[in-house]
Amino acid sequence: MEYSSTLLEAAVNEISQLPGIGKRTALRLALHLLKQPESQTRQLSEILVRLRSQVKFCKNCHNISDAEVCEICSNPYRNTALIYVVEDIRDVMAIENTGQYRGVYHVLGGKISPVDGIGPGDLTIHSLVEKVKSGTVEELIFALSSTMEGDTTNFYIFKQVENYPILTTTIARGIAVGDELQYADEVTLGRSILHRVPFENSLKG
Amino acid sequence: MEYSSTLLEAAVNEISQLPGIGKRTALRLALHLLKQPESQTRQLSEILVRLRSQVKFCKNCHNISDAEVCEICSNPYRNTALIYVVEDIRDVMAIENTGQYRGVYHVLGGKISPVDGIGPGDLTIHSLVEKVKSGTVEELIFALSSTMEGDTTNFYIFKQVENYPILTTTIARGIAVGDELQYADEVTLGRSILHRVPFENSLKG
Repeated sequence: MEYSSTLLEAAVNEISQLPGIGKRTALRLALHLLKQPESQTRQLSEILVRLRSQVKFCKNCHNISDAEVCEICSNPYRNTALIYVVEDIRDVMAIENTGQYRGVYHVLGGKISPVDGIGPGDLTIHSLVEKVKSGTVEELIFALSSTMEGDTTNFYIFKQVENYPILTTTIARGIAVGDELQYADEVTLGRSILHRVPFENSLKG
Repeated sequence: MEYSSTLLEAAVNEISQLPGIGKRTALRLALHLLKQPESQTRQLSEILVRLRSQVKFCKNCHNISDAEVCEICSNPYRNTALIYVVEDIRDVMAIENTGQYRGVYHVLGGKISPVDGIGPGDLTIHSLVEKVKSGTVEELIFALSSTMEGDTTNFYIFKQVENYPILTTTIARGIAVGDELQYADEVTLGRSILHRVPFENSLKG
């Protein structure tokens, strides 16, 4: 595309660095900002810089937080011996929304993925293993997505903690509530048969 | 959604003000920036503010420009008596990409749309009519999208210039080159029959 302004071109190039945003969308966003009051652009810019420079990560669970220790970790009603191992903060938000979980979290910050150049050292695995070594942990729940990278990461952590007296579990995989069997993929359906539960259990919730 | 940080929440709220970007996408973008070097966020913020505060609009055609007069208007090989009336700068880019047009443009900056609170005074219609009055214009080509708002805007401008000795034309509507008749909508198909052209003409381009 030919731009009539080098400034506009630079802005479009910078905006299209964001994931999932191509040049066309970037141009649409830039033109939108030009039509809005200058204050909107200023606010957007300021909050982005503030977020990037001032945001903190909880020193316990590595969740994004306003304080040194996040609200979940500092909540006295939470069971800190039960740790949900997740990939990123969006998983924490999804689980918190269910209102079913009263333990704490450990945010890895990604999955082991050699293709993307992400090794165990880039994640917060070390501090998770330290927690287990310190003896305060009773159970780790693995909840990474069931992809090659997720499974690798789960297994890597499992091998490091398997000799400690803790329980390691993983969330149940199966047919989603309300889904029909005929539309389920074979792997999910297979696992749902393999890990079937007593009928009485399904009546509880 | 519950955010673990008020800073993150503020950023998500600000990003999701952009058109076509919901809270989920905004969160994804914010988390992406947090994973990238701080310099990327800084560059993005700076270019947005610079774009908003420093960008110029060509005083002839209202196209976005680095100079007082845009490159198209200041090009001596362009026919300034032929004016293509378009909605925004993306239309200019699309037409320039065809390489078929040697006239100039007039960017209205939108369409008359009472629903969105956009009246004739919000667009650059006045300066277009002034150009026509000054006697330098030979032809206006209307190229707004064929919606209710586009037709209204075309008609509004047409009524203001119809008593001046200029030609007013509109781009041909019809079946796109390569499209099949059976998939065309009735209005387009109807117009393509009504405005059929001599077969020899279709051989030229």
